[in-house]
Order: sequence, then C-alpha cells, then structure tokens
Amino acid sequence: MRTQFCGLIDESLIGQTVTLCGWVNTNRVQSHTVFTDLRDHEGVAQIVVDSDMGELFQIAKELALESCVQVTGTVRARQAVNDKIRTGKVEVLAEKIEVLNKAEPLPFHHHENPGEDTRLKYRYLDLRSPDMQRKMRTRTKLVSALRHWLDARGFQDIETPILTKATPEGARDFLVPARMHEGEFYALPQSPQLFKQILMMAGFDRYYQIARCFRDEALRADRQLEFTQLDMEFAWVGERDVQDTVEDMIRDIFRDVVDVELAAEFPRMTYAEAMRRYGSDKPDLRIALELMDVAELVKDSEFTVFTAAANDPDGRVAALRIPGGASLSRKQIDEYAAHAAKYGAKGLAYVKLDEQGVVNSPIAKFFSEESFVALLDAVGVRNGDIAFFGAGAYNKVSDFMGALRLKAGKDFNLIADGWAPLWITDFPMFEWDEEEGRFVALHHPFTAPAVDSIDDLRANAKTAVSRGYDMVLNGNEIGGGSIRIHNSAMQSAVFELLGIGAEEAEGKFGFLLDALKYGAPPHGGIAFGIDRIAALMAGTESIRDVIAFPKTTGAQCLMTGAPSPIPDAQLAEVHVQVRETKAKD
Amino acid sequence: MRTQFCGLIDESLIGQTVTLCGWVNTNRVQSHTVFTDLRDHEGVAQIVVDSDMGELFQIAKELALESCVQVTGTVRARQAVNDKIRTGKVEVLAEKIEVLNKAEPLPFHHHENPGEDTRLKYRYLDLRSPDMQRKMRTRTKLVSALRHWLDARGFQDIETPILTKATPEGARDFLVPARMHEGEFYALPQSPQLFKQILMMAGFDRYYQIARCFRDEALRADRQLEFTQLDMEFAWVGERDVQDTVEDMIRDIFRDVVDVELAAEFPRMTYAEAMRRYGSDKPDLRIALELMDVAELVKDSEFTVFTAAANDPDGRVAALRIPGGASLSRKQIDEYAAHAAKYGAKGLAYVKLDEQGVVNSPIAKFFSEESFVALLDAVGVRNGDIAFFGAGAYNKVSDFMGALRLKAGKDFNLIADGWAPLWITDFPMFEWDEEEGRFVALHHPFTAPAVDSIDDLRANAKTAVSRGYDMVLNGNEIGGGSIRIHNSAMQSAVFELLGIGAEEAEGKFGFLLDALKYGAPPHGGIAFGIDRIAALMAGTESIRDVIAFPKTTGAQCLMTGAPSPIPDAQLAEVHVQVRETKAKD
Repeated sequence: MRTQFCGLIDESLIGQTVTLCGWVNTNRVQSHTVFTDLRDHEGVAQIVVDSDMGELFQIAKELALESCVQVTGTVRARQAVNDKIRTGKVEVLAEKIEVLNKAEPLPFHHHENPGEDTRLKYRYLDLRSPDMQRKMRTRTKLVSALRHWLDARGFQDIETPILTKATPEGARDFLVPARMHEGEFYALPQSPQLFKQILMMAGFDRYYQIARCFRDEALRADRQLEFTQLDMEFAWVGERDVQDTVEDMIRDIFRDVVDVELAAEFPRMTYAEAMRRYGSDKPDLRIALELMDVAELVKDSEFTVFTAAANDPDGRVAALRIPGGASLSRKQIDEYAAHAAKYGAKGLAYVKLDEQGVVNSPIAKFFSEESFVALLDAVGVRNGDIAFFGAGAYNKVSDFMGALRLKAGKDFNLIADGWAPLWITDFPMFEWDEEEGRFVALHHPFTAPAVDSIDDLRANAKTAVSRGYDMVLNGNEIGGGSIRIHNSAMQSAVFELLGIGAEEAEGKFGFLLDALKYGAPPHGGIAFGIDRIAALMAGTESIRDVIAFPKTTGAQCLMTGAPSPIPDAQLAEVHVQVRETKAKD
Repeated sequence: MRTQFCGLIDESLIGQTVTLCGWVNTNRVQSHTVFTDLRDHEGVAQIVVDSDMGELFQIAKELALESCVQVTGTVRARQAVNDKIRTGKVEVLAEKIEVLNKAEPLPFHHHENPGEDTRLKYRYLDLRSPDMQRKMRTRTKLVSALRHWLDARGFQDIETPILTKATPEGARDFLVPARMHEGEFYALPQSPQLFKQILMMAGFDRYYQIARCFRDEALRADRQLEFTQLDMEFAWVGERDVQDTVEDMIRDIFRDVVDVELAAEFPRMTYAEAMRRYGSDKPDLRIALELMDVAELVKDSEFTVFTAAANDPDGRVAALRIPGGASLSRKQIDEYAAHAAKYGAKGLAYVKLDEQGVVNSPIAKFFSEESFVALLDAVGVRNGDIAFFGAGAYNKVSDFMGALRLKAGKDFNLIADGWAPLWITDFPMFEWDEEEGRFVALHHPFTAPAVDSIDDLRANAKTAVSRGYDMVLNGNEIGGGSIRIHNSAMQSAVFELLGIGAEEAEGKFGFLLDALKYGAPPHGGIAFGIDRIAALMAGTESIRDVIAFPKTTGAQCLMTGAPSPIPDAQLAEVHVQVRETKAKD
C-alpha cells in the first residue's frame, strides 16, 4: 500500500513518485495551498496540494485530523526547510489522496495531556503520540536485546504454565475456577519460581523466560496486577556465577539500548551496611547523603527518647545531615516529621544551624554544651545545615531515616545525574512477623541459608543470613535472586521454621520435596523487573508508560472495561457463584 | 563448579585435569574398576576409578543412579573406544568425587517408558531423557529463530494483557474473580486478537508476540487449556503482503531449525477446492488420494441415497479410490464405515475389484452394467482397488470422505515423506449454525468480507467469502489469519449478521467500534500455533512432548496437583463461593 514510510523520505527521492500511508497529523491552508503533515511511526511528511488542483484541493482541505490516508505524489525540495525533522528538506506534491478511514472529531489529540484516565480509556489515541511510541519502542528494544544476549549464551527459553497451583502465599493468588473439576481452582503464578527450579532438576542447564507474573493485591502507584519479569535459573552454580553473568548482561544491554555505560564493576554491599548507611535495602547511591549512628554520643544525654534507644541492643539513634537544610521553615520541618511518621517515626528531632551559626533545636536543652558541640561536630553540621535525628527500634529508625534521606535528596536537588547500580548481599534469612508471631522468609522459602547445617540454622534462625542477592539501580530493586536449597531435608527444615507444617508442606510442595530427593543439582537464579527497567531506560517515572494496556491503580482496564459482571449461567458452568454480601460477615 | 560439560570432552583435553558435574547415568564394576557414565544436557562422559583408589573406589561403587555428582580427574584416552558417542574416545580418571545430592531409588528411569501419567507426575525425571531434551531444545530453537527473524525486520514485540475482558465466545473463557471489584471477573484471553488490532489503530506498524492463549474446553488429544501462538499484525496491508512475508518466515525458520527446505512457493487453494478435492480445509497433500465428484454418473441410478443427493443442489456424491484397497476384509470395511459414521456418515457404499477383476459391491445391483462400468472407469478403479462412495449434504459428505482419505493414507502407507505446505483462501464468511439458528463466523467476527459494500454482504451473507486465510502443513492448520474490518459501520453490520445486537456489541466491543471511528488503518495478520509447529519439527505426534509442564486431557497437572480445592475463607476474599451442586439444576 505504500512505497515509503512517511518519516523516512528525504532528498534522495526528489523527482520520484511515492505512495505514503499515515494519519493526518496537522492540516492547514495557507496562501491557496493545503499543507498536511502525514504521520506514521517513523515520523511526518509534508503533503502539499495547490488550489489549482480542483477536487484534490477540496479533499485535502477537508481532511479530518487523525484520519487514515493514502497519498501518491512526487517528492520535491521544500521552499521553507524545517531543520527540526528528518524529512524537513522535502515535501510531496500530491496527485492522489484516498481517505481510508475518516476520523470523527476526537475526544482529545495526543498533543494535549488530557489526564491519565482519559489517556487510558482512549489508549489507541494516546499511544499514537511520538513520545509514547518512543517509550514503547525502548521496551521492545530492551526485551529484544536481552533475548539476543541470552540466546547467544546458550540460555534456553522455556515456557512454564500460567494455570497452576495455589501457593502458600496464597492470599495474593488469582484464582481460576476449573470447569472440569467442580469446586477446584487453578491459580495464576506469582512467579515461575518452582517451575524453574524443577527445570534445573530436569536436566536443563541455563533457563530464561520473559514471564508474565500475577499478584492480586491493592495496587501501589508503580504496581500492576500482572507484570513481566526476566526469569533466569542456572544449574551447578554459586552466587558469583549468577551475579557476574547478569551484571555483564545488564551492562551490555544498557550500552546497546540506551547507550549508557554502567560501572565496570558494580559496588557490593551487605544488607546490614545498606541499612546502616542508607536506611534502605535498595539505596539510591546517586544521593550523597548518609545516615550516621550517634548512639555513643547521646547515650548520656537527658533526652530519654535517645538514651532508651541508645542503650537498647536492638535500638538505634541515627542522624541525617542535610547541607543547606537550614532554609527549611517550621512548616517544612513538620512535613518531614509527617513523612517520617508514615514510616513509623513517633517524632523527629532536629538541629538547625543558620548561616550565622545560631542553633535552633528543641533537643539542645537535653545536652551539655560540650556534648552538643561534639554531637554536631561528629554529624558534620555546618552553618546553613539541618540535621534530623531518629531514635527507636533499629529497623524502624532505619526505615524512616532512609525515607527522609530520599525526600531530602529530591527536595534539595541532591540527586546526581547518571546511573548507580549495586549489589545488596547477605540478607537475613528470616524476618519475625509480630502480627503472625512467626518467621517469614525475607526472599522466599526456597532461598538457601549461608550455613549448610540444619542444626546451625535452627539454633541461629534469628540472625541467619541467606544466599539471596538483589541488584539495585538508582534506588530501584531491579533484580532479586538467590542460590536455592537443593536438599530435601534442608527444605523441610526451612518450611518448619516458617511455620509450614509437614502435612501442609507435603500438600503444597510435595512434588518439590520429592524432586529434591531424586538428584537435584546446586542451582540458583534471579529475576529482573522488565517494566521497571524499561521505565528507567525510557526516562519515565511510571511503568504504565511502558505497558501497552495497563490497569489503573483501581485494577481496571478503562479501555475494555475489565473486570466486568458475568451472567450467572456462565458462572454455573464453572461451578461458582458470586457470594452474597451478608455471607461474608 | 565445572571446567567442562560432560558431553563435550574430547581428545584435545587428554592429560588435562577437568572438573565435571552431572547425573549418574550408569554405574558398573568390571574387573576391579568402576565405570560411571556422568550425564549433563550435552551428553555423557565416562568416569573410571580403579580398586586401588581406596575410599574413592568405595564412593564410586556406591554412586546411586541419577545422583548429582562433581568429579575432578584427568582426561585420558580410552582403551575401548565407543564410536557412538562424541566423548567415546576419552575417559576421566577420577581423583575426587563429591556427591552433591544423593538420589533415592527412582520411581522409574528415563530409559524406561513408564506410561504418560507417570512421566507427567515425575516430569523432572522424564525431561532428563536425551530424547525429551532434544525435543524441548527444538522448541527453544524454533522460538528463538522466529524472534530473530522478526526483530531483524522491524516487527515490534508488544505484550498484551492476560487479565482482560470476557468475550462473546465467552463460553470458553477462563474467569478470574476480581478482589477489588465484588461480583466482577476478568477473563483470560483466547487470543490477543482485539488488542493487536487496537495496536494497529494506535500507530504501531508491525506487531508480534509469542502469546499465551487460553481456552476452557474439553481437551482433545492435541489440545491444551493454555497454548502458545506467534501472534502477528500488520498495518496498511492486503492479504498478499501478510502471506508473502510469513511464507518467507516459515521457509527460513524450517531451514534454520531443522534443515528442511520447503517449497519455494507454497501452493494456494480456495476453501471450495480443498473441500472438493480433499474433503478438508487443511488437506494433507502428502497423501496422493483425491475425492471425485460422481453425481452426474449416479443421478440416474436406482440407488435413492445417491440419486437424492445427486439431484440436490446442496448435495454431494463423492468417491474415494484406494489403490490396493481390495485387500480390506469385510471387518475392515466395517471399520471404515464406523470411522465415516463418526464424521456424520449414515452409511458407506463401496466397490471392491479383486486382483482378478471380480466385482464385490452392494450397490452394483442399482446400476446398469454399462453405467456401472462407466462409474468405475471414471473413478479409475483398477484390479486390486477399492472405492468408497459417500452421498448426502455437501459439507457432511466432504467431512467424512476427507476423514476416510486420511485413514486410508495411514493404513495403506500412502503418506509420502517430506513436507507439504499450502495456503487455503477464500473461506466462507459465515457458517449457518443449525442448533442456534444463526450465522457464526468461520474465522472470527473481525474478519473482513471480500466485498466492500455492507448491502452486498447483507444480501449475500450465505455465500459471502471472507478475506481469511490459513497456512496448512502436512494436514495441520499451523497458521490462520485474515485482513480485518477497519470500518466501524461494516463491523457493526457483521455483528448484526452474527446475531450480536447493537447493545451487546456496544457493551462488549464498544471500545473497538469507537477505535474504528478515530482513524483505523487497513490491517491484517495471522497467528501460528507454536506447540504444533514445534511438535512437527521435533518429529513427535504429541504437543505434550514440546511443552515442559503440560496438562493431561483431564485438564490436570499431575506433578503439582493443579487444580486444587481452595479454603472457603480465601474464596470469600474474592467474593465467590463454590456452587451447591443442587443449585446447578
């Protein structure tokens, strides 16, 4: 239907007849000539029709925006060259124009920004914008580059089921009633975790899959019900085999896709160090701020909030100095306190030192002058700075001080340009869940502990370290993985420590426990979040910009109207019914 | 953990120390030496330990089959060379053996063939067999070759949602209750059809996706609840653009993956011709047999079954000659009749001409000798042949005679070696569904009719031809596609002809009807069945052999035990309950 793409015509075609297809991008009449910009995914071409062209002039004049049009004409040099676009030196003098699909008046034009709900409802109009085309193409390039990299290195792309079995983290499973098995359900996978481990036990050596995963939970701003991960697993490896390979991969694809050269060697940091210095297990290293532990300096003060935490082995007193932060008003400081409160802070102490060196601090009175000066000195507070102080349980203080660090980084433009990847290692094996009164797995229940001995693990569960690792980029956890348990007895012991009884384990994971008995190689892997990496590469905050048809945070597709009510007769065929609301109480 | 793959050691390594990892494939003691074959996905290596090695000899002797083992030793030339395997000229004299995972006695060994249910339950053992490894690798190569081909030609890989909206062919939809929307459901897509069309309206030019699709229906032997298709769509095209491109693609990937050279130009055949000559819209052209229409020759006989059909404009009388078929016994002929009956035949007439030329035929008596001889002559029946005759409604006769043709092809070894691809075109737009008393779409409701005029289509719906096409290979429909409707009014008219009222169309397809009004380019595409193509390439009848974790025909995963019952409390969270059985009546 076309001889050229609109966006690719140039001076080499002058004098030639071409046929172009595209959307009417703009249309204007000027000094008895119609100028139409015709757009395809490669760009725009200027079409011209003079008023002496009779019927053709009439057709051109009336072209509705976004109509689909086929134009045949001769390429010629433009009088008014447009240097901003690739096709700006030429135009097409139309000889024939066919309107293939006339557009009705649009709900909006993609030049406008009509708000995300409207964009999602008319996604087909939204996606036509050159900016969205560019973002989506970045994602395509990313996925293609990853596949080519992996295919060239013997990784085998293997599909795993989407209709599978409910798991113990079942609360987040999507359930699918089974027509052929009354009262039974499939579940959509939260990840192909068990299948990829089984593949290693099945004799495959290096596996990957760009896999769709599902998690039925309230959507945070950057979450989707379904998301895509690059899922990988390696047989016969230790953690450095996995890490070194995928670090090379990430470096290579950033170079290929967005021409970014990441560090030749990614920094490595233990979980403990990351929490201590940055109050986060995914620190954004572009922000130069660090937390400082000051328990030793405050433990003898008269401020009981500090002294209690400073003298508690599970407590923490940490300071965050913000250069130039003395400019914060009382109201802004309250906003910081409110932000910290969201992460569990009960209060937020601070010291402001104005440009003249005058101290403003509600906690100064609890210190002798000497010890207060020593404290400021240790934290490095200079004229014009502010320092925030947090005290309480170690993890809580780390969390809210880490959150303040990020907020300060943004507010004070302290985020350096560039890319800051790193590895986080030596995660705790378990976290104690206060509500449930039991251990939960920090990664997942299949992660190997650093110790080989089951007795050791049982005796030191609280402090046990796992063989898990995360790759972090600019404050985002872009990949997470581990060496897995490859021994049935160890796997059973970990289930037990997680409060999964032998019977429950057998019912839900019997096949895994069996497989671990029949020749399971040491294995490990990782999974990368494709949506987030694509968003980072495309330079957008929202993963919805790199997903063709995303759901809203309300879990709806505004274009198709999913989810939707289903006739009861159809539900009967799969043996379910909608629950009476009262029955839920 | 290893320096080499087991299956790749060779004479170039003689004298070197290597470390291998793998599964114990075989283990035997012979003249004071333990010979162990260690296997990985590349093949096997022979490990030897002599009895003078003390503890190492003991370890080697006791290695349990399928245990995971790491061996370090020196490569040396073998005394007894094994020419059948790549590593057969060398062996490894072990210096260190570490058992990484000791295997318990196995439920079966992959050398055996324990029946498919056992294979599926212990899929991780089944997949270890070199044959299954080869089949799965063929699939990986196929998918990789397709992606590389498409990426190199500017096709854009775009993911479409798996949690989407229920469709009108809803009876086959898998339903997923929505936690955040009480009483509402997502549906899993039967294909990304509407999304890919919307992508064309969204300005993407060439799309592809290796897409998981779902169909909740009773499983035939070669169907799965979830299956994989290569889904493609092109903007600004007619049917030959699509067909020529994908024909090149299929030819290239058969060459790349299995070194098969398909025809330089695939034959093309209309649906009408395929039904007439082969009684099938996916004829296996490797079988030289053809149906022959004989209505003219029988319409004046005294056999009313023939004359009624021969004189009915919607009737058909067809013959199938099987060379050498006179060898069929009375019982075997009954089996042919039973086979035909499965496809709707009420009876099956035949003429047998034995090697001496003696006629055996229940229908001879209805013919004059002259007209009978003329009939046999026209059908080409020679001594030693049989000819079957079918009479009745055109489609029914075509169906069961086509089924007989396939059976005869197999029974008489009439299937030629090689590969027989072809295009089927000019499908009917609609089929009349007797049960529902309405038209149904032969492809799907978005397929464009060959006529542009809505009035024409309405006036001639019964005989209307669509712009659909199928690619057939060796009797399998491996791809199906069409040019789509790109005009809102035509789409509404087709919905109406299919008995989808304006309100229903608006509710289910409002977004499509809208999108068609805002600049929809002419577009078309195709989808290929990856599972089937992989099975054909791997030389296996069953698509389950090229799916890592398939479901049984009973829709179960025997390894994980999916589907499974779900606690009522968990169902309550997604607002459904299992239906009381009585409530279904």
